[in-house]
This record gives sequence, structure tokens and C-alpha cells, in this order.
Amino acid sequence: MAQSQGQRHFPLPEAEAPTHWYNIQADLPVPAPPVLHPGTKQPIGPDDLAPLFPMPLILQEVSQERYIEIPQPVQDVYRIWRPSPLIRATFFEKALGTTAKIFYKYEGVSPAGSHKPNTAVPQAYYNKESGTKKIITETGAGQWGSSLAFAGQHFGIEVEVYQVRASYDQKPYRRAYMETMGTKCYASPSDRTEIGKSILEKDPKSPGSLGIAISEAVECAAGVEENKYALGSVLNHVLMHQTVTGQEAIKQMQMAGEYPDVLVGCTGGGSNFAGLCFPFIGQKFRGEASKPFRVVACEPASCPSLTKGKYAYDFGDTGQMTPLIKSHTLGHTFMPPPTHAGGLRYHAMAPLISHLQEIGELEAIALHQTECFEMGELFAKTEGILPAPEANHAIAAAVREAKKPENAGKVILFNLCGHGHFDMTAWQAYSSGTLKDYDYPEAEVAMALSGIPPVPDN
Amino acid sequence: MAQSQGQRHFPLPEAEAPTHWYNIQADLPVPAPPVLHPGTKQPIGPDDLAPLFPMPLILQEVSQERYIEIPQPVQDVYRIWRPSPLIRATFFEKALGTTAKIFYKYEGVSPAGSHKPNTAVPQAYYNKESGTKKIITETGAGQWGSSLAFAGQHFGIEVEVYQVRASYDQKPYRRAYMETMGTKCYASPSDRTEIGKSILEKDPKSPGSLGIAISEAVECAAGVEENKYALGSVLNHVLMHQTVTGQEAIKQMQMAGEYPDVLVGCTGGGSNFAGLCFPFIGQKFRGEASKPFRVVACEPASCPSLTKGKYAYDFGDTGQMTPLIKSHTLGHTFMPPPTHAGGLRYHAMAPLISHLQEIGELEAIALHQTECFEMGELFAKTEGILPAPEANHAIAAAVREAKKPENAGKVILFNLCGHGHFDMTAWQAYSSGTLKDYDYPEAEVAMALSGIPPVPDN
Repeated sequence: MAQSQGQRHFPLPEAEAPTHWYNIQADLPVPAPPVLHPGTKQPIGPDDLAPLFPMPLILQEVSQERYIEIPQPVQDVYRIWRPSPLIRATFFEKALGTTAKIFYKYEGVSPAGSHKPNTAVPQAYYNKESGTKKIITETGAGQWGSSLAFAGQHFGIEVEVYQVRASYDQKPYRRAYMETMGTKCYASPSDRTEIGKSILEKDPKSPGSLGIAISEAVECAAGVEENKYALGSVLNHVLMHQTVTGQEAIKQMQMAGEYPDVLVGCTGGGSNFAGLCFPFIGQKFRGEASKPFRVVACEPASCPSLTKGKYAYDFGDTGQMTPLIKSHTLGHTFMPPPTHAGGLRYHAMAPLISHLQEIGELEAIALHQTECFEMGELFAKTEGILPAPEANHAIAAAVREAKKPENAGKVILFNLCGHGHFDMTAWQAYSSGTLKDYDYPEAEVAMALSGIPPVPDN
Repeated sequence: MAQSQGQRHFPLPEAEAPTHWYNIQADLPVPAPPVLHPGTKQPIGPDDLAPLFPMPLILQEVSQERYIEIPQPVQDVYRIWRPSPLIRATFFEKALGTTAKIFYKYEGVSPAGSHKPNTAVPQAYYNKESGTKKIITETGAGQWGSSLAFAGQHFGIEVEVYQVRASYDQKPYRRAYMETMGTKCYASPSDRTEIGKSILEKDPKSPGSLGIAISEAVECAAGVEENKYALGSVLNHVLMHQTVTGQEAIKQMQMAGEYPDVLVGCTGGGSNFAGLCFPFIGQKFRGEASKPFRVVACEPASCPSLTKGKYAYDFGDTGQMTPLIKSHTLGHTFMPPPTHAGGLRYHAMAPLISHLQEIGELEAIALHQTECFEMGELFAKTEGILPAPEANHAIAAAVREAKKPENAGKVILFNLCGHGHFDMTAWQAYSSGTLKDYDYPEAEVAMALSGIPPVPDN
């Protein structure tokens, strides 16, 4: 073929797909702090988590093995959409007028349209193997609920989703997707749980939050022996499942004859960021990286856990039902402003990512959503993919890197974690000029931080 | 990689992408009937079409060359998403319990989510090259409008879309997509045209139709020298642009070590069907096919032009503004029942496809939408792609083929022409059990057919 531009697509053959997940805990120069029991404030053991998760996932959560084999049935289901594309953004580069080489790993080709099925599939599989009858979870933007809905029906396991009320009302199509997959979906707060009822008593019109929805799902799961809970981000095993992304990207960058100078990902709970970056950071820890590189985590200015949060032990949910995790937190009662990147509206960061920041392995920046949508629009017009609001953050951060004089000719790789086809309300707001930016809500965060639990380390 | 199933993905390297479109007119054993001038009833010449289309497209419309080179800038833009995937439906096969091998070519990876950009991009390019200032078009389901919106902004040319009122109201997210691409979108019938005004006078609440929207767009385009019209299906050059699909599929089937026994596509105007099937049929005409194969066109039972229409000269639009094309028509005033497959609700069939049916080269079947959604649901659950309502028809037809005893072990290839992310209203209707089937509206068609123009051939 005649071609007036460089190669764009670097499809990885199926036979080259990863057979193992990569566990960064094996290579950490300093181990990450343990998860604590909220009552005893002592490190929790596997049995403490048994009411919530099946044992294989609990063992993965604490494993120090570098590579954990992906069960064959999970590898098979990954083949539905993986290996995912790695694309050089030739048209986007041209529109920016940059000499930087911009690559993106595209996770929007998955069944639910984001990276979330990478962990939903193994979580459904291990639950099925362990005899779980029903998996209960929460969803904010709807990506996670959709992913578990897909994975659950695939392995013949029931899924029940508590969807944040605001999202339940504003994104009926996400719910339609889940219902098409046979999943039952409830608006949260609901009258199906004690925590939900108590919140509705105080505020019958509560728009809900991820923290509340987590509490409801945990309450439902913990109450019945054969029910389990599932989380779509934050936890070690969830981040580990995402590493298929980065492992594929390493091989695809080899196909492109390049190695990144800068890695970029957006962070809410941290899982898409970890999925792309951990395998590269692991190479660095083991002295196997082709060259030094920087790692940039990008979060919303309105919910800036990494850039403004306190590194402390805190609950993962509003209802204080989870164990205590050490992370950059804005306080478990913090209610983030209503930006459109629902997947980035979480008060805390994955412990492993917080730890990497503490030991100096990554940089974090916070961006307003208008800048993100502007860059997302340019990306959509040039690269032909309409990104999710969350992914817009990674795009905008990659553009900031591309514009730095010292990055002339350098290689930037970011994770395009999902498409925005179910987020058109956000794009309508942007097109019509009604998109609002929200500053860092200092007073609210201060109040929320005053409520984090008294732990010696805090 | 360990793999407990056969290979699913057959990614074609960029360097193998087609450099030419395939023009089936060069290989037809009997030439197709000419397009007639509605006044003189004589074959039209290029000048008759000049008010509507730029000359390069008019010359392609009547060309008898077998291969027409794809201009380099168009090849470049195709690289944004092409070559598109060809996938073996291993999970779908398993769920069906069939021994048939089912492959699908997936066009939903394009910017607008369907096959339509394959022709929108060259149409925008040739218009730009020819000095067109604004392209005006209609859209039903919204796929075509979205595609031209993307292509137009890419080449810096203005696009204006008349969207069928019912679709404008029911699918706000399609409009949001077009607006994000900078396209102006009006509900049709509108008060911006004479035909629109005359229809609104009779029925201020008219839900519109594709035939009316075409009339409005044609009226606007024909009135101003530097404005042109664009059509997303039916015409010869439009079908030809789609042949990149089938040419890629031929190479990808070679990679899979297979050749189809049955080809399947859904038909509204006919372009996605033609895109997949014409290159194969051309091989057959030239004696180059690896083996004999059947070709199945699948249409909605509620709008069955190929199976119930009259093969006659008719207008392409309600307002009688287009030339006369010889095709299987249900009458240009026929208003198809409101099924969800908006892209298949057109009263006539592409002349080239009608001609192929007349000379015995294809079989046509008509299906009710409930059967199509049932098979589409199973496909979504197993293959992880939520199909557009139009694509559900191709899936259902492929399943019918797979279930035939004589197709045991045979190879079926169908065109999955788009995803259904912007069609969730339809999926909601299906999930909630409110989806209705519509029978062949015999009386309405008889009345519409009484209005086709008096042409000697009719």
C-alpha cells in the first residue's frame, strides 16, 4: 500500500497474548503498607476478607509472586476482544503540530467499552469456581456494572448492581446495557439496605455517591453466605488483572520499534493507570527497561486525591464497612463535585499507586474538565474515537507532555481507557457550552479529612 | 499462548489494505439498466447530475473500470480505523451448538460506528477537491449523518444534515455526536424547504421519513451552485466505496485458511451488503472464486423491497426530485412501519443489488425484528459486541443458515455493519418486552406502488 504517513496500527497476534498477570508487589523496592482491620487496627488476614471475596482473589490480593497464571477459561474470554489495539496517533500529532510521537493503548474495544472487563472476567470466573451464587457490586459511571454484567452472564453467575442514583437517572443507556446482559440494577441509595434506608431518611432525594453504593453492595454481600462482593478498582488483585494491558503494550511498542519516554494514565481508583504502567515500572525495578521514563497520573481538579489528599489509613466507603487502606484520601465522607468523569470521582487512591507516589515513582497532576474535553474533542475529530470523559483526562495530560519543549521527538504512551458512547450527556453539555469547571473544594475536604479514623499511622 | 479454542482474530496488516475500490459493473454478465431523467425518461448524462454531485463521483457512478484507485488522502483517512477486524465467532458458534464456522467482518470500529464512513470519507474528499462549500444530506437512524459529519470536518468542509424527525427526537445522542463534529442538524420535515413546509402544512406533527428528508436535502443542495448533495447508500459509487470491506475480508479469510460457503448481509439501501459481497461475487464472475458460494440478503419483514417489491423505475425520494432508478421498490410514497432498524427502512433497493437478484446471483429473505433482536442478544452475550438493530438482521440470517442441516461444517461470513451504542432505546424496548413485530403492510404498499411514475419499462 502506498502510505503518506507512518504506520498507525500494531496488532499483537493472539498467540502473543499474556498468559500471566504481573504482580508489582514482587518487585517493589519497599513493601506497601498492609490493609488494617477497622476494629483491631491490625493487619487483616485472609479470613477477615472471606465474607466479601472468594479465596483465590484474597490470595491474589496478598500474593508476592511476580507472575500469576491466567486461568485458561479467562484467557479464552479475553480473546473476545484482546489483544487490544495499540495505535500511533498520527492525525492527532499532526493537529497538535508536535514532533512528539504519541501512542495510545485502546481499551474501548472491550464488551462494555472500557478496561473494566479485564478484571470483571477473572472476578466472575473465580467466584463461579468458588461456589458464589450472586455477585453484588456498585457502579458509578456504569462502566464497572456493565463489565461485571457481561462477565457474570458469561460464567452463568447472577449479578446485582447498585448504581449511584444520579448516574442511574442520567445514563439510562448504561442501565439498558446491564439489563440486556440480564443484570438487576438498583438506584442507590435504595431501601434494600440499612445504610441506604438511613441515608434516604435524612435525604429522600439523595443523588447518591460511590461511597454509599459500595456500602450498600458490601452490606448485601456480607449478609448471605453464598453471595460475594466485587470491586472494580483500588484493590491489589484488581490492578493486577489490568496488567494484561501494559504487557501487551510492551510487545506492541517493540513492534513499533519504540519505548516510551513518558507514560500517562488517568486515575480515579487507579486501575487503568496501573494496567498500563505497572508492567513498565516493573521493568524499571528489575533493570530491564530500555531507557529511563517518567510516569504521569492525571486526576480531576475537583477530586484530587493524589495531588491534594492526605496519605493516611481510611475507609473505602461512606458507611465504614470496608477494611482500612493506606492511600491518598480526601476523606471517606467527601462528596466530589458532579463532574462528568464519574469513574474518577472517588475519594481515595489505590494503595499500590499511593505507595508508588510516596516512593517517588510517579508524578501526579490535576486538570479541569473543560481542558480535558477540548483535547478529547480534537482527539475525536482527528483519531475518530469519541473518548469517555475519564479518558479525556489522559488525552489532555498527554497533550501537556507533548507541548513541553524537552519532549520534542520523545515517545508518549497513554491509556485510552474507554469510549464515550454512553456518555453523550457530557458531550452535549460540552458542545452546548454548559460544561462547568469545579475547583478543589478545600473546605469540604478539610471537613471530610477530620472524619478519618484514629489510626496510629494517621 | 495456551488456547482451548481456535484463532478468533485475523488482523490484516496496514500494508495489505486495498489501494483500489472494486467496481462490479466491469464484471456484470448483463449490464444494469441505466438511470433515467424523470422528465424525458431517457438515460441521464453526467451533466444532469452536476447540480447534485461533484464530477469525480458522477464519473465513478457510470464508470465501467474494474478498479478505481483510492486517492492517497482517502487511503490515509481509512487508516484511522481500517483494515477492520475479521473475527471468527467462536463463542457464538458454541452457544448455537453449530458445526458451521461463522465469521464476521466488523465495521463498528469506524469513527461513527458503522460502515458508512467508508463512503463518507471519499465523498467529502471529492467534494472538497471540486470546490464544494457545503455538503447537505439526510439521515434516518443517524449513522450516515454522523459519518459525513466526521468526514466533513476532517477535510474542512461544512456539513448540514436533515434528520428524520422521529429519529431526531428519539436519538438525541446521534445528534450530539454530529454536533460534537461541528455539523448543523435539522429535524425533517423542516420549515427550511418548500417540500418540508408543504408537508408540515398538511401535518404539523409529521414524524418525517427518509424519503422526505432526501427531498429536503436535495432541494437545498440543488438551489446553490457551491452546495452539493450526498447520499449514503443506493448509488453505484456509494456501493463501490464500500468494497474495501469485501476486499479486506477476502485476504483475511485466506489468513484463516477458509473461503465462505455462504455470504450474508442486511439490506436497506444495500451498501453494507454490497461492500462485503461484491468483491466475492466479482471473483465468481471472473472464475476466480475458490469454490461456489451462496449470497443471502436479509431485509425487515416490515419493509421488504427485495422480497415483495416491484422491479420498476421509481423515484428515490418522496418529493420526486431524484432521477428514476430501476430497483425493487415498495413505492416512493411508502412510509415503512416504525421498526428500530432505521437504516433498513427505505422503500427501494440499490439498482446494482436489484439487478443481481434479477439475474439470479442472490437470495433474499425477510425477517421480523424480534427474531433479529433475540439473535443479536445472544451475539452480544457471547461475542461481546452489542450490535445495531440493522446488524441484528444479518446475525439472525446467519443463524438461520447455520441451523440448516446442509450447512454442517460450512463457512458462513456475514457483515456486522455497526454497533448499537446509539440505539439503546431499541435494546430497552427489547429487554422490557415492548418490541413489536410488523407484518408486510400489503395495502399500503399497493397504494404506494400505484403512484410510481409511468415509464415504458414499468
